Amino acid sequence: MLGIGIDLGGTNIKGALVDDKKGIIKKISIPTEAEKGRDHTLDRIARAIEMAAGYASDNKPVGVGIGSPGVISLDQTTVSNPPNLPGWQTVNLASEIKKRTDYVCRVENDANLAAVGSMNFGVGTDLDSFIMLTLGTGVGGGIIFKRELFRGTTGGAAELGHVIIDYHGPISNSPARGGIEAYIGQRFLSRYAADIIRQYPENPLYEKFVSDWESLEPLHLFNAANEDNKIAQDILISAGEKLGYAIVNYIHVLDIRKIVLSGGVAQAGHWIMDSAKETALSRLMLPFHDGFEVIYEPLGNDAALLGAASLTFDFKTKIL
Amino acid sequence: MLGIGIDLGGTNIKGALVDDKKGIIKKISIPTEAEKGRDHTLDRIARAIEMAAGYASDNKPVGVGIGSPGVISLDQTTVSNPPNLPGWQTVNLASEIKKRTDYVCRVENDANLAAVGSMNFGVGTDLDSFIMLTLGTGVGGGIIFKRELFRGTTGGAAELGHVIIDYHGPISNSPARGGIEAYIGQRFLSRYAADIIRQYPENPLYEKFVSDWESLEPLHLFNAANEDNKIAQDILISAGEKLGYAIVNYIHVLDIRKIVLSGGVAQAGHWIMDSAKETALSRLMLPFHDGFEVIYEPLGNDAALLGAASLTFDFKTKIL
Repeated sequence: MLGIGIDLGGTNIKGALVDDKKGIIKKISIPTEAEKGRDHTLDRIARAIEMAAGYASDNKPVGVGIGSPGVISLDQTTVSNPPNLPGWQTVNLASEIKKRTDYVCRVENDANLAAVGSMNFGVGTDLDSFIMLTLGTGVGGGIIFKRELFRGTTGGAAELGHVIIDYHGPISNSPARGGIEAYIGQRFLSRYAADIIRQYPENPLYEKFVSDWESLEPLHLFNAANEDNKIAQDILISAGEKLGYAIVNYIHVLDIRKIVLSGGVAQAGHWIMDSAKETALSRLMLPFHDGFEVIYEPLGNDAALLGAASLTFDFKTKIL
Repeated sequence: MLGIGIDLGGTNIKGALVDDKKGIIKKISIPTEAEKGRDHTLDRIARAIEMAAGYASDNKPVGVGIGSPGVISLDQTTVSNPPNLPGWQTVNLASEIKKRTDYVCRVENDANLAAVGSMNFGVGTDLDSFIMLTLGTGVGGGIIFKRELFRGTTGGAAELGHVIIDYHGPISNSPARGGIEAYIGQRFLSRYAADIIRQYPENPLYEKFVSDWESLEPLHLFNAANEDNKIAQDILISAGEKLGYAIVNYIHVLDIRKIVLSGGVAQAGHWIMDSAKETALSRLMLPFHDGFEVIYEPLGNDAALLGAASLTFDFKTKIL
C-alpha cells in the first residue's frame, strides 16, 4: 500500500511517497512561499502531493497525511493559527486538499506524527507504549499508549516541551515559564551556552564565536564536548539534567517508561542522553525504575513524514 | 446492585455497603491493628467486609473493591510494599479475601478510586474526562479519560503529587524533589506555614501555636484567612499558585481540562482554588484555556469508598 506524507513548514514543504512495508520510496521538497498567502500555499501543498505521487508506479497512493504546525482539530481535518503561515487563521486543510488533488487527507501535529512514524517504522516498532520527544528548534511530544496515539480530549495532548520543571525558570515560546523547551530547545540552549562561554575567554569556543554568538549552535557544543571541551560538556550535561526532570514528570503522570528522543539535539548523543537518564533515575519514584529506558530514534525528520503517510494506512493508526 | 467498598488505611479499615444507584447505604470502621501483622490485618479486612455485608437486606453484594496504599498490580489483585502496613511485602489481596469471604475482590490505588467514585457518584458524573487530585496528608491523583480510568502501562499512572514544579524545590515523600506534594501536602503546608508565622510574633496565629508549632494544621490557616488574617491568606494563595503550576503540567501532557479537587486541603475552598486557577491560566498555552475548570468534589473520603465499590459494578469500571 502506498501513501503520501507531507511535512508542512514555514519555509519548505517536504513530501514523501511511502510504502507501508518498505518505508520511504522517494522524498521531495519545495519552497512553501508562505508570504504569498494562504491560497498559494495550499496550491503548493497540492503541487508537492502530485510530485510525490508521480513516483508511484503501479498503485495509486491511498491518501495523504499532513504534519502541520498550529492547533489541529480532533477530527484531523482543520488547522488553526499555524505559526509561520501568515493569514491562515482556521483552514480545513483536509477539504482544501481533497478539492485540489482528490486525495483523502488527514492532518496531525508533527510531533505526534514523529511518534506514529517511530511506532510503525522506527525504534517504536518493538514498543507497546512510549513517549516521543522531538528535540529541535522547539521541543515537541507525542504519546503512544498501547500502540495508539494518545490525543487527549481535543487532540492537543503531549505538549511535552511546555511541561514546567521550574516555575520561576526562563521563558520560551509559551506562557509555561520554566518549561523544558526553555532549556533544551535549540535556540534557548544555544543562547544559554553563549552566555556561559562568554565568561571563559580562554575557551576555544570563545575565540570561535566571540564575533558572532548568534552562530553558535548545539552541534558546535557536541563537537567541542567530544574534543574534551569541559565547558561544552558541562553545558550539555546540564541540559540533559533538565530533560531528566521533565521525563520524571511525564512518567509520573503516564506510567509510560520508554522515552524516545528524536531530532537535532538528540543527535548530541550520550552527553545529553546519559545525563537525562541518570537525573531521571535519581528523581523517579522507585516502582517506575523497572523498564525505564531512554532510546535514540535515528529516523530524524523522516519519522514525521512516515507518520504522516501512516495516517492513510488506516489499520495502523487507530486514534485513541 | 450492591457492592462493598473498603478503604484500607494504616490506622483504620473503613467499609461501606454501596448501592450502584443510591450510593452509600451504610459505613463502618474498625481499627486495622497493623502492628499485629499481615495475617491479622487480612482477617480484619474480612471482618470489615462481613460487617458491611451484614447491612444488605435482600441482595447479596456482588463483590468487594479495596482501596489500598502501595503499588497495585495491573490485574488489580496484588499489593506490594504498602507503607504503614509492616511485613506485607507482596500480598495477593484478591485471593486472600476470596479465601476468607468468598467474595470476588479487586484492588486499586485509593486516589484512582476517588476518581472512579467521583465519576460514578460525584461531580464527575457529568464529565467525560477529568483529573482528580486528592489533597490530604499526601497528594494523590487519578485520571479519567473518556469515562475510563487511565492506569498507564503497569497500573501506576497518575502519581500527580510527584510531578515536579521546581527541580531545586523542597523534598516530600519521594525522590521527586520540588513535587507539588512538597508544597501542598498537609504536613508540608503546615510546616511551611509555621516557618512563616514564626517570623510574625504580632500575628494571632503566632500566639496560638508558639508553644506547639506541630499542632498547626491547614484548617487553622483556612479559619484565620476567613477572619482576614493576611499572613494566612498569603500562605494559602502561595500554595494555590504552586498547585496551579502542577495543573499546567497535567493539562499540557494530557489535554484533560477539568480538574477535580477533593480532600481536606481542598476544603480550604476559594483561597487555594482561586489562586490555583488564576495561576494555571497565566501559564497554560492559549488553546488549553477553553473548557478549563477547577471543580470541588464534596464527597470527601466517601469518593474512594464509592469508587472501591464501583470496581464490583463491572459495567461502570472498564479499565483502559
